[in-house]
Amino acid sequence: MKSYKEEVWFNTKRKRELINITPQVAEAVRKSKVKEGFCLVNAMHITASVFINDNESGLHQDFLEWLEKLAPYGKAYKHHQTGEDNGDAHLKRTIMGREVVVAITEGRLDFGPWEQIFYGEFDGQRRKRVLVKIIGE
Amino acid sequence: MKSYKEEVWFNTKRKRELINITPQVAEAVRKSKVKEGFCLVNAMHITASVFINDNESGLHQDFLEWLEKLAPYGKAYKHHQTGEDNGDAHLKRTIMGREVVVAITEGRLDFGPWEQIFYGEFDGQRRKRVLVKIIGE
Amino acid sequence: MKSYKEEVWFNTKRKRELINITPQVAEAVRKSKVKEGFCLVNAMHITASVFINDNESGLHQDFLEWLEKLAPYGKAYKHHQTGEDNGDAHLKRTIMGREVVVAITEGRLDFGPWEQIFYGEFDGQRRKRVLVKIIGE
Repeated sequence: MKSYKEEVWFNTKRKRELINITPQVAEAVRKSKVKEGFCLVNAMHITASVFINDNESGLHQDFLEWLEKLAPYGKAYKHHQTGEDNGDAHLKRTIMGREVVVAITEGRLDFGPWEQIFYGEFDGQRRKRVLVKIIGE
Repeated sequence: MKSYKEEVWFNTKRKRELINITPQVAEAVRKSKVKEGFCLVNAMHITASVFINDNESGLHQDFLEWLEKLAPYGKAYKHHQTGEDNGDAHLKRTIMGREVVVAITEGRLDFGPWEQIFYGEFDGQRRKRVLVKIIGE
Repeated sequence: MKSYKEEVWFNTKRKRELINITPQVAEAVRKSKVKEGFCLVNAMHITASVFINDNESGLHQDFLEWLEKLAPYGKAYKHHQTGEDNGDAHLKRTIMGREVVVAITEGRLDFGPWEQIFYGEFDGQRRKRVLVKIIGE
């Protein structure tokens, strides 16, 4: 069994951003030399997400507006009694998910026609990272 | 390490449907001959889900009504400026999840008492598919 | 390839509880002797979750209050026509997720700075369990 690990760092300009990380993950798969296996991609921070959806900017705006409705910023979250102000980001990340597992087949990410991997940042403007871990043969 | 891959196709009669795919996944595990490993089952389309829950039709109705409340059909989603009308289906799939990873133990899906795997279609009436990928020994 | 399996049982005092299970999972990784691989942790019951977030009691209270808003207890869910009263718990678990997959690197859970694994119980006060399954080398 082969394994491969890589961390990908981000420092977003805005507090909330959705970033297409498919090229970095595809490159990690190439470097891993794994032909058949699994690729795990997960946020290493608990106010950020990794998810798979469409690479369409209108939809991304819809996601951000929808999350703001489901888990609004600036409410009196109990988490803020610790001095934090990012309670909403913990909830938003929960909706969008921490991780994806993608099959590797014949050395490539085994994707449907529109699947792309995104990093979802909900409390950005500081250095945070994603883990890519690959196992297989 | 062994690996095995299969695609399962659907073409639902209704726009939204929840379909029990446990038999197809169990059969893929059998064919893979993997005794100890992981089975990934994921929607290959971004307006559909794979999730695990109870095989109870009342609960399935509850799921569909609840999703309609959280992510209603027919709203002015920005995604619709591309000509699509399925913005709600992208959001519904996000709540229900893209994928499940199930342990394989002694050659079988290692399930709790009520766990069943479902395909969740939120923009159907056309051909779409699920990936089953198995690795292990 | 090595594999290892363990079930961890719970019987919560309250109907809804969030329990830090990182020590049990870390111990399972140690016992597995896997140095590079994946660790799957999933609820085996369909009204409970496994998720990763922060070990902060205020935030946990925020999670429970937020879930109560998104999926309230005591509504006329169709699932209740079977005699059950836990429709809300099926929905709450869907928001929080069934499972996490965590990378194992150099024999340890490969975590970001604040990641901890939690069992989320939404219909407790009875014996339920979590599956820990590890594969790798």
